[in-house]
Amino acid sequence: MPRDLRPLFEPRSVAIVGASNDPAKWGQWLARDALRGEHRRAVYLVNRSAAEVQGRRSYPSLAELPEAPELVVLAVPAAAFEETLDASLEAGARAIVAIAAGLGEAGEEGRAREVAAVARVRAAGALLLGPNCLGVYDAAAELALGTDDFVPGPIGLASQSGNVALEVSLLAAEAGLGVSRFASLGNQADLDAADVVEALAEHEPTRLIGVYCEDFRDGRAFARAAHAARQAGKPVLLLAGGASAAGLRAAASHTGALVSESAAVDAACRAAGMVRISSTRELVELAQLLLAPLRPRGRRLAIVADGGGSAVIAADLAAACGLELPVLSDETAERLAPLLPPTGTTRNPVDFAGAGEQDLRSYERVPRVLLESGEIDTVLLTGYLGGYSATSPELRAPETDAARGLARAASEAGVPVVVQTMYGRETPAQALREGGVPVFRDAEGALRSIARVVRYEAEAPPGVPELPRPDPALAGDGYLEARSALAAAGIRFPDARRVGTVDEALAAAAELGYPVALKALGLVHKSDAGGVALGLATEDDLAQALAAMPSAAGHAVEPMVTARTSVELIVGCRRDPRFGPILLVGLGGIFAEILRDVAVALAPAEPGEVEELLLTLRGAPLLTGARGRPPLATRAAAEAAAALSRFAGAHPELAEVEVNPLLVTPSEAVGLDARLVL
Amino acid sequence: MPRDLRPLFEPRSVAIVGASNDPAKWGQWLARDALRGEHRRAVYLVNRSAAEVQGRRSYPSLAELPEAPELVVLAVPAAAFEETLDASLEAGARAIVAIAAGLGEAGEEGRAREVAAVARVRAAGALLLGPNCLGVYDAAAELALGTDDFVPGPIGLASQSGNVALEVSLLAAEAGLGVSRFASLGNQADLDAADVVEALAEHEPTRLIGVYCEDFRDGRAFARAAHAARQAGKPVLLLAGGASAAGLRAAASHTGALVSESAAVDAACRAAGMVRISSTRELVELAQLLLAPLRPRGRRLAIVADGGGSAVIAADLAAACGLELPVLSDETAERLAPLLPPTGTTRNPVDFAGAGEQDLRSYERVPRVLLESGEIDTVLLTGYLGGYSATSPELRAPETDAARGLARAASEAGVPVVVQTMYGRETPAQALREGGVPVFRDAEGALRSIARVVRYEAEAPPGVPELPRPDPALAGDGYLEARSALAAAGIRFPDARRVGTVDEALAAAAELGYPVALKALGLVHKSDAGGVALGLATEDDLAQALAAMPSAAGHAVEPMVTARTSVELIVGCRRDPRFGPILLVGLGGIFAEILRDVAVALAPAEPGEVEELLLTLRGAPLLTGARGRPPLATRAAAEAAAALSRFAGAHPELAEVEVNPLLVTPSEAVGLDARLVL
Repeated sequence: MPRDLRPLFEPRSVAIVGASNDPAKWGQWLARDALRGEHRRAVYLVNRSAAEVQGRRSYPSLAELPEAPELVVLAVPAAAFEETLDASLEAGARAIVAIAAGLGEAGEEGRAREVAAVARVRAAGALLLGPNCLGVYDAAAELALGTDDFVPGPIGLASQSGNVALEVSLLAAEAGLGVSRFASLGNQADLDAADVVEALAEHEPTRLIGVYCEDFRDGRAFARAAHAARQAGKPVLLLAGGASAAGLRAAASHTGALVSESAAVDAACRAAGMVRISSTRELVELAQLLLAPLRPRGRRLAIVADGGGSAVIAADLAAACGLELPVLSDETAERLAPLLPPTGTTRNPVDFAGAGEQDLRSYERVPRVLLESGEIDTVLLTGYLGGYSATSPELRAPETDAARGLARAASEAGVPVVVQTMYGRETPAQALREGGVPVFRDAEGALRSIARVVRYEAEAPPGVPELPRPDPALAGDGYLEARSALAAAGIRFPDARRVGTVDEALAAAAELGYPVALKALGLVHKSDAGGVALGLATEDDLAQALAAMPSAAGHAVEPMVTARTSVELIVGCRRDPRFGPILLVGLGGIFAEILRDVAVALAPAEPGEVEELLLTLRGAPLLTGARGRPPLATRAAAEAAAALSRFAGAHPELAEVEVNPLLVTPSEAVGLDARLVL
Repeated sequence: MPRDLRPLFEPRSVAIVGASNDPAKWGQWLARDALRGEHRRAVYLVNRSAAEVQGRRSYPSLAELPEAPELVVLAVPAAAFEETLDASLEAGARAIVAIAAGLGEAGEEGRAREVAAVARVRAAGALLLGPNCLGVYDAAAELALGTDDFVPGPIGLASQSGNVALEVSLLAAEAGLGVSRFASLGNQADLDAADVVEALAEHEPTRLIGVYCEDFRDGRAFARAAHAARQAGKPVLLLAGGASAAGLRAAASHTGALVSESAAVDAACRAAGMVRISSTRELVELAQLLLAPLRPRGRRLAIVADGGGSAVIAADLAAACGLELPVLSDETAERLAPLLPPTGTTRNPVDFAGAGEQDLRSYERVPRVLLESGEIDTVLLTGYLGGYSATSPELRAPETDAARGLARAASEAGVPVVVQTMYGRETPAQALREGGVPVFRDAEGALRSIARVVRYEAEAPPGVPELPRPDPALAGDGYLEARSALAAAGIRFPDARRVGTVDEALAAAAELGYPVALKALGLVHKSDAGGVALGLATEDDLAQALAAMPSAAGHAVEPMVTARTSVELIVGCRRDPRFGPILLVGLGGIFAEILRDVAVALAPAEPGEVEELLLTLRGAPLLTGARGRPPLATRAAAEAAAALSRFAGAHPELAEVEVNPLLVTPSEAVGLDARLVL
């Protein structure tokens, strides 16, 4: 059951504690903002000393209010946090928004104060947003506290940064979009990103969710909420702060965040079908496409340009984004030809070559042929639509008509059109937006967004896996313990014998068959410490190797696994403090060292999912059999990795578990080393 | 000697042939544009039938003009091209701009007409711009023909697309920049990109050169002109159309271009120190930084943000661009602390945490500490500067003062500051631009541009190499001929013996020593055709291999080259129709197949340059000795590739030459195969 956030977003009454007349204080802005909603709800201003604030009666304390305030906003310094919070609860508040900075993000003591406060809030059955937050916004309820610049629209926002949300709202407004609801998460002492996303998923006017988050608290709950939103048809765009070392440093001082590794966030995005973005600009660009009535669903793009150079540049940019520009059929080319001057081109890109100047209706007619051709998935019109209106006012009406016709053509064909123009403020561009056509300022942004949405539409996110019930905790984390625990979990390893003496080693090797490998036990990084000798072909080799590798903990002797063709994988799980165990698969050896060619998923993962993951690696052709190589046992590798991920999921006491390398041959996948970190 | 383009850009008189009153005709726009410069020069309108055009006397033909027109613009259809061109020359024109499309770009016949016309233009000592062009612009001369939207500024433009130039000028104007000169290149029948760049390099008001080009004509002359411009302190930003298959298709129909492979353009950029870009947006973003009085010269960046979230996002974006965010020293942190609220952060990123609201002078004071610290190379201020002016008019003056102070602080410290703000139209942003501070709309664009300029400043482009005098043409292109010609050029190969019979093969192998390789002669793709057998260890193996590999042209027997550690390189040269021979080096095997990990240079290249090239490969750690591997003979590999590039340069009859693989061991680089294509 999601928490009921109605008292936060649609309060029947609101009180501003710390309401002020001083224009340098938040209390002044918040009071002003609250009063703008006076026609929708009772607004109470509370100020310890002033009798009047902003021309309204002010109350000396919450206790004096004529009714219980449903929402209380605390615009008071951190020192007064507990006192005003308790007074709010006493006054009957159902939701509290705490602006004050300097609590949980400022260190241990502040965190303890937050925890204690939250306990009291929850005991009272109320909600707390913040502290260290900017405010809250609900377009339909006309509630805009700390967010007076926001304009209404379909985007729901949850953000740990007020400024980031403000930037999104400004960019969104330029794109003809706006915000449905916004919660400034602050320190997430009580309400966190998961709660807000969960509520937004069920909030009818919200059609897309944008999140800026540094600390995911219960990361799996957050991912589940995001997956539910996607299932409900609402894309979730995630800007996760702290993808770099410097970003981590910044996030730690900003919200005292316990920031997850970037790979863990990637794994959560993959599971939940969130789109991970890296800037506010990207968020609004993608929102334009995802909120349009028609979404690009395939890679086949037609480019229409009113200028040869624009056509060439857009074609190059499209190719760089992985989009395809199919050559149009003769039939379509023949339908285009009469609409274009003789110097126009009818294949793809289609170059107007001045058709627009000759007849503005070309802006509808030419794309219409493409939209109706059945040969492409999306049309990009790039160039100067709107420029005629900008330079010749008498052309505004016909140009706007053409723009409306273009929007209609897309709608009738059921194929999306996207427009790039420098004249995005002119009436033709407005007509396009009103008709559901996304308008971009630059071709680069348009094309990368189209490519991203095509991938989005093709995804089938598996959802957030349940963690299995914990198995009995592991006793040891030595090499042989790791091997046997993982073997029991279903991963194949070659035989291994623990040996204490030369004679035992020789006996083991005789039984296993030469060549053998010798490994010193009791070392965490055996290879680096010289504790591994491979390919020992004779008794002498083995005896010499043993003599050169003293080990108080003894040794292991194993048969060498050989194959004509094989690939080494790295398979491991690491426990993220927020998202739990994360499965990582990657190619080993050179690929790991130079390319960091890895893919991640939330553990436990199913074999089918891991197989897909393996195929996303750049080095995947080595597994599938490129250029005459035999295909390798990819499914077996996926099963081994899935088994490892189940094992990690069932052992919460493990910080890390790794099989590196996992040797994949044409017939099997065999672990050649294993490591546990408790 | 560059051609003197004064009559084109600064004509003392101009005639418009085809001047018109019809608003749908170029002749109307051009006449109007020309008349705007009437206070600078005589303007003659020529119209076959009208006596008056745009309220001015019109002449029925060029022959009637009272003086020789220095510049003639032909706004006539392609059919009238020759006639009006000849009339222009007869009337004494020194420069002719031909707008008409439908000539050289439309096929063989049009091309022949252009060639013939150019011969007459050159015989008369005149210049021709176009045909198929938009016009010409010179800010200082107040000449704006077909370019009435351009605003004056420091950017010189040469473009094969009028629309692309127009888009650049619009974006530049928004960034407070403008255009010094612009030539619309069209089909480049006479004047080409090289001529215009050469002239812009010597044009004092031009401080940066932007080029959009699809067909480079004499590519090396173009690269030399660009290199000269860079040597003269003028960066050249190149948008080369046709980097993708679809782009090539579009370029071919746009200007009938003979488009170079993208790799050849890369090689030219490397030699000349041009910055290759992929969009008009990128051009103007980079121009902002490159034209500022201070350029970012190192990777150490400080981020100042007026909001924690903005700080985190910018830090993550900076890291993704390869910039460094050093942790600031205690000393600098102590100087910052008194300027920030207690919740501010003083390391890097530096978070205002509301310092701006408390005192707008913070926007100068906080960055100043960083600029003066000596710990960083660039400061990025990201956030809301200008937002106070937007919301509170009374804050405009103090905020603009702070912006001026910030510009002054950068100037005094000699360290660049770059500002990102959503409020780029407000007066503080204008004050910044006037003070030489680049202002960006989004952090992404700012950071990628900073990173690009840092690389630019670190480059030392080698210049365009001279092609050697041709050696006598090669007689044959067989395998053994290729080997011996390349061996003579200085590349090491193992011995090889041509054999005709089994006995000869066994004798050769006995002499060379087993194991040997056997190759069938007379096949272009030996490996693919089963014409290569490697590692033949015995007489029997060799005899069997020979029996299984019949070849009328005979066989070669070679000793196998073995090394404990080695890497296979691909080294080749291909002749580009515009840029001549291009050297390509790359890692072979898996890297070539999966990653296309290659680097290119204009041939001939010096060994030192090739060594640098090899070190730019992603797989370079394999050469230099990563993770305990021995370093390989990279210098020897570079010398072999340099020798191959000299060889290709001296053999213009060669379309292609390749040594693949070039085996690089710890001690040597040896060619294991060789191929020529005449």
